[in-house]
Amino acid sequence: MNHPESLNTLNIEHTQLDTSTILEHVIQAWTALQTQQPLVQCITNSVAANYAANILLAAGASPAMIDNPFEAESFTQISGALSINLGTPTTEQVQAMQISAKTAHTHQVPWVLDPVGYGPVLKWRSDITDELLQFKPTVIRGNASEISTLAGNQVESKGVDSTLNSADVYAQAQVLLEHAECIAISGESDFIVSKAWDAVIQVNGGSYLQPKVTATGCALGALIAAYTAVTPPTIACIAAHVHFAIAGKLAFEKSQSVGSFNVAFIDHVHSLNADRIAEYADLQILKSR
Amino acid sequence: MNHPESLNTLNIEHTQLDTSTILEHVIQAWTALQTQQPLVQCITNSVAANYAANILLAAGASPAMIDNPFEAESFTQISGALSINLGTPTTEQVQAMQISAKTAHTHQVPWVLDPVGYGPVLKWRSDITDELLQFKPTVIRGNASEISTLAGNQVESKGVDSTLNSADVYAQAQVLLEHAECIAISGESDFIVSKAWDAVIQVNGGSYLQPKVTATGCALGALIAAYTAVTPPTIACIAAHVHFAIAGKLAFEKSQSVGSFNVAFIDHVHSLNADRIAEYADLQILKSR
Amino acid sequence: MNHPESLNTLNIEHTQLDTSTILEHVIQAWTALQTQQPLVQCITNSVAANYAANILLAAGASPAMIDNPFEAESFTQISGALSINLGTPTTEQVQAMQISAKTAHTHQVPWVLDPVGYGPVLKWRSDITDELLQFKPTVIRGNASEISTLAGNQVESKGVDSTLNSADVYAQAQVLLEHAECIAISGESDFIVSKAWDAVIQVNGGSYLQPKVTATGCALGALIAAYTAVTPPTIACIAAHVHFAIAGKLAFEKSQSVGSFNVAFIDHVHSLNADRIAEYADLQILKSR
Repeated sequence: MNHPESLNTLNIEHTQLDTSTILEHVIQAWTALQTQQPLVQCITNSVAANYAANILLAAGASPAMIDNPFEAESFTQISGALSINLGTPTTEQVQAMQISAKTAHTHQVPWVLDPVGYGPVLKWRSDITDELLQFKPTVIRGNASEISTLAGNQVESKGVDSTLNSADVYAQAQVLLEHAECIAISGESDFIVSKAWDAVIQVNGGSYLQPKVTATGCALGALIAAYTAVTPPTIACIAAHVHFAIAGKLAFEKSQSVGSFNVAFIDHVHSLNADRIAEYADLQILKSR
Repeated sequence: MNHPESLNTLNIEHTQLDTSTILEHVIQAWTALQTQQPLVQCITNSVAANYAANILLAAGASPAMIDNPFEAESFTQISGALSINLGTPTTEQVQAMQISAKTAHTHQVPWVLDPVGYGPVLKWRSDITDELLQFKPTVIRGNASEISTLAGNQVESKGVDSTLNSADVYAQAQVLLEHAECIAISGESDFIVSKAWDAVIQVNGGSYLQPKVTATGCALGALIAAYTAVTPPTIACIAAHVHFAIAGKLAFEKSQSVGSFNVAFIDHVHSLNADRIAEYADLQILKSR
Repeated sequence: MNHPESLNTLNIEHTQLDTSTILEHVIQAWTALQTQQPLVQCITNSVAANYAANILLAAGASPAMIDNPFEAESFTQISGALSINLGTPTTEQVQAMQISAKTAHTHQVPWVLDPVGYGPVLKWRSDITDELLQFKPTVIRGNASEISTLAGNQVESKGVDSTLNSADVYAQAQVLLEHAECIAISGESDFIVSKAWDAVIQVNGGSYLQPKVTATGCALGALIAAYTAVTPPTIACIAAHVHFAIAGKLAFEKSQSVGSFNVAFIDHVHSLNADRIAEYADLQILKSR
């Protein structure tokens, strides 16, 4: 399932790489998520555990936070996808990450790597992240600082939040396609760098309040994983980002302060449908052959 | 406190095992919870920790998430009840579970076992759960898959969510009365299998949105524990399930999407009172001598 | 930054220790928090991790829950402040606490110690807390039971909630000024015992529902830490408590049940501004030279 997709497997011929065709596939992906309710194993941080599970349930998937090394191998084998997030790793979680990533690679279970805080200040997790790359994540997703640093461009990062503009980073991110099918960079606009399509897709929308709610990025990583269980990686990334961008936009119309915004955000993650995707999705194709 | 209750200790004569008598006892249990605000030790998972604490506070109890092996023995001794949940166990938490369960058994502190994910895929926790049974939980609660599998009927389970109907399982659950006073099975309707009453009580209500909010089952286990601190096991189980069923029903009248439903659900867990229990509780007695 | 402040560093002459002057400094502190968005390292419990991060983001700070011993030293060095909370410690977290507290002391990073559950029943964490005092926390904050017991007056405590009135405890808390610049005691009214000012400041406001939401006290500790990154300790404590007291008061005007109260509370933590501080802050100076 994490094999390189081709345009043909998507029924997208090269000349058809247009936004309306992509949106049809996003709608199909969303529908498949509702129908299949894939089991998504999440090894995530203490801040995101509850939130990511609620987002996955709201979106239509079946989350399971199995993060111990003693059950990692057997559970990854039955999972539709795996999400690994380096936010607050423990020694036992790191062991589980290594086992599950290896198992996912061996059994072709698609998986997402979210290298939270990657950079020289947080060396332990950065070394772990480097090692996990050998198991070929389907998608690497992060903010601009994390992706840029992971791409070998050392930048100053302030903790786990991003100090770079995501638009500046997607060119650098190309080198990471050696390890993964897609690189997803979140920010004011999001950028999805696709190996199969040799294209960058920009997703607009959301709200400036989204980063004011903790773990939205982590939950987005889990949602990408959920979509990889039902559709090829590039569409999975676009679908997850469109899902969040629309929910963020509609939530902000309802509420302009963070507490009630977050409640409305979860509501709109849950109440997305094909019509809303068609009406509100805002995509641009930045580069294609 | 976790000794077998008799109908007499409830002032329920056998011929009086009717729903209105049971509801009187549920109302008394709810009142006792408000008055006594029992201290409930929870050893629970990373997804449920915040949510279960908020539910217990909203319901009237005093939660304390003491889950390390170094303080487990002394803390269980002063607790009114103990809730053990196998959702995302760590090695240190498992040690705490074993110490606290043993302490609860020795000191007659009532305790609830929630065997999340029990089944062949998650062997480590299933073995731990099997071992914990020797300390005679007051109540075992889970979804239909978990209870069925624990009862020795191996079924295919999808992660930690249930693939069986709870109504099919309560007959199987009888064998678990060898280990516990009550078995509580949650689902569209809930079923409480009582050893002391030799009866099965069905609790209706709630909302289809409840399983769309993560950790509602885990929080229900903690709430059962809270009630066991103030009332015998069968009434404790019924009271906790009625508490959740009414809150779910009223929350759904307020909101039909998961984010705002969950907010309304916590509100209604907090605002339950005797009148609402009398008006909305929906019970059936399925089997009695 | 955690050096003893003098009234002069605040431009408060002794005769000027009046509430309107203090409020000017609180408003300056709040403004500085918005402008500087300090990075706050939190080593906190499983219940509070998500909530404290959301409160810090809502208030204007940048939270980072780095709680492993392998990255503690390097991360504390770049942090604006550190918050240590003993709610549900693991062995690895305790190691991180010791390293980060020592690093904060050495590098003059202000830090807050929240001795959750301190007392004879929870001996392990109490011993750890005693050891952490050698690294001279900038602020010790807790409920009345915790502060009283830490001050050497053994009281009966019910789990992690307080059984004493905070007003009774601030006299006892003076002895803790040997270890810290300020002692902050939360309760129906809050009391801040300041070494530099030789004064006790009482902060009124909030709502009786605040302790019905789990981890509000833990999040308050994290918020105090955030303020210590931008202002001297006494003003930091007052500012954080005023911030919470106003948010609690305004949230209760919006909602009287705990779920929706909590949503409104986060909203009002986010929407605080200078005018609201001036209008709603309710302070009293209880003792000064």
